[in-house]
Amino acid sequence: MSAERKPVRVMHVGLGQIGAAIARAAMNRADLESVAAYDPGPAVAGKTLDEVCGEGLPAIAVRDRLAAAAADGAPQVALHAVASHIPDIEPQLIELVSAGLNVVTTAEELISPQNRYPEATARIDEAARAAGVTIFAAGVNPGVLMDRLPVFLSSLCIRIDGVRVSRLVDLGQRREALRRKMGVGAESDDVRARIEAGSIGHVGLIESLQHLAGGLGWQIGDIDEQLAPVIGETDVERAGESVPAGRVLGLHHTAVARAADGRPIELSLTMRLDAEEPVDVVEIDGEPPLRLRFEGGVAGDQATVATVLNGARFVVDAEPGLITRLPIPAGC
Amino acid sequence: MSAERKPVRVMHVGLGQIGAAIARAAMNRADLESVAAYDPGPAVAGKTLDEVCGEGLPAIAVRDRLAAAAADGAPQVALHAVASHIPDIEPQLIELVSAGLNVVTTAEELISPQNRYPEATARIDEAARAAGVTIFAAGVNPGVLMDRLPVFLSSLCIRIDGVRVSRLVDLGQRREALRRKMGVGAESDDVRARIEAGSIGHVGLIESLQHLAGGLGWQIGDIDEQLAPVIGETDVERAGESVPAGRVLGLHHTAVARAADGRPIELSLTMRLDAEEPVDVVEIDGEPPLRLRFEGGVAGDQATVATVLNGARFVVDAEPGLITRLPIPAGC
Repeated sequence: MSAERKPVRVMHVGLGQIGAAIARAAMNRADLESVAAYDPGPAVAGKTLDEVCGEGLPAIAVRDRLAAAAADGAPQVALHAVASHIPDIEPQLIELVSAGLNVVTTAEELISPQNRYPEATARIDEAARAAGVTIFAAGVNPGVLMDRLPVFLSSLCIRIDGVRVSRLVDLGQRREALRRKMGVGAESDDVRARIEAGSIGHVGLIESLQHLAGGLGWQIGDIDEQLAPVIGETDVERAGESVPAGRVLGLHHTAVARAADGRPIELSLTMRLDAEEPVDVVEIDGEPPLRLRFEGGVAGDQATVATVLNGARFVVDAEPGLITRLPIPAGC
Repeated sequence: MSAERKPVRVMHVGLGQIGAAIARAAMNRADLESVAAYDPGPAVAGKTLDEVCGEGLPAIAVRDRLAAAAADGAPQVALHAVASHIPDIEPQLIELVSAGLNVVTTAEELISPQNRYPEATARIDEAARAAGVTIFAAGVNPGVLMDRLPVFLSSLCIRIDGVRVSRLVDLGQRREALRRKMGVGAESDDVRARIEAGSIGHVGLIESLQHLAGGLGWQIGDIDEQLAPVIGETDVERAGESVPAGRVLGLHHTAVARAADGRPIELSLTMRLDAEEPVDVVEIDGEPPLRLRFEGGVAGDQATVATVLNGARFVVDAEPGLITRLPIPAGC
């Protein structure tokens, strides 16, 4: 199969922490070849991919214009790791697909974009179709654990009475930037203020819920979303962090909605510095019931990188357009 | 989504234990409408679907010719539950697709048919394409747990070093016919003789392994398949069965193969009368590692019925041809 085919030529778009991890991981994949790179940051101006991301990578110029990068090495797919929100990246995505590049993006909102941004969604889809290329939102949460995986599993159920997904994520095993993003070590009032301002938290829980509901064919009512800091009851020393009792260890984020007939979808994400036994659980009440546990959880940063790499061949082969929902059998 | 669309009109092909369960379950699904039925058995001659499968079902005539059934109620999809082996059903499948019916079948061998029956596979695919319809092999084992699910999960891995799937199935919770098929209560020498003769055991383990290897893009060597009776060490009384020590409680079936570089795929299926804590486990060694457990296992008969029902809308919407591998992102 893929082993017999030529490597997919990829262009790295965005060389932040995740983008750089994608570039490093791509190097060890026989099915991918890194041929171009783009990042407009002043710190990387004039550098090459190996200088920015690590020794051993190809010495490709890191361009500060997409068009210049796209002219290097005839890339087939852009691996895009720039931002979470569609308004921040729409022009970039449209420029990429219009240049004839398939795109795999980490942008969380693109997992289920049509509710919040129907017009931008239509523009991105149309640009991709017009160019005959595919754009796919990869990622693990959102992207798999709380949305595409339960939709896939729903094909095992004759009847579904409710779906619950809960993740307990160990911030002690995650990148430092994520810990800062989740308020680790901060004062609880400070984190509450940042929650009020909408400047903290996990992006994509609402998108996961909308994606899952759509995949099940459920019309859901309003989504009840809750976000609160997790306050430490004792001092916690972990992963180079030192958080005294009373300070923030992470966040607890939930989203709940119901179908018109009352059947619930409940998503719960707890990320904390001291979650030494992380676990991800998908439960479907119904006939038959399903109770699935990922023991030790799913390592989010690595899995996110993986979904991007594994999306490259997929977008090359797929029908043109914006793909959010996978073409798989799903339960009613 | 599906809730807004008209029900898919289905024709039931085969009204044995699984076929009848499909017909009963379809009755409670708003997305499906049973409009036709076929079974050539003398016991059901001249009867209607409700007489054969249970009260409350529509009083559709059970026809003894496919063409007569296909003329009832303009069915869009045949739900086919007749036999496991492709040579036994190829003419029927070709007749169904040639009559313009999409097909969802429980035939285990059709999950990965190209290795054992390349010519029949090509004929079935070609007939479906010529008629503009889709044929899909549903099922849970084979069909999901040991093949499509690990392929789906492989998208979470940057690198895969090996895959293991093991199922411990409780025959005490399964249909009586399956217990007989698995040798429950028989003498061990008798079961060993039936294993030698190839007349006992689970159909589809090899197909699962081939499907999984193909989905991962691995070229595998010879498959080492082992099948042995599980002998009871004490008397077992369960589910109306009484099996003295020394007799057969079920079967243990394994299949192992390796990629050219040594990476293993290991499938293990243990079905026994006394498996009071059934569990299904999928493990992927790699980066990141994944360890997933279905607590309590997946109820096989119900889940098989579900995959058939949920396949109906899928085949209506899918591209023409024989679909075995789902079009999803998969790991390297």
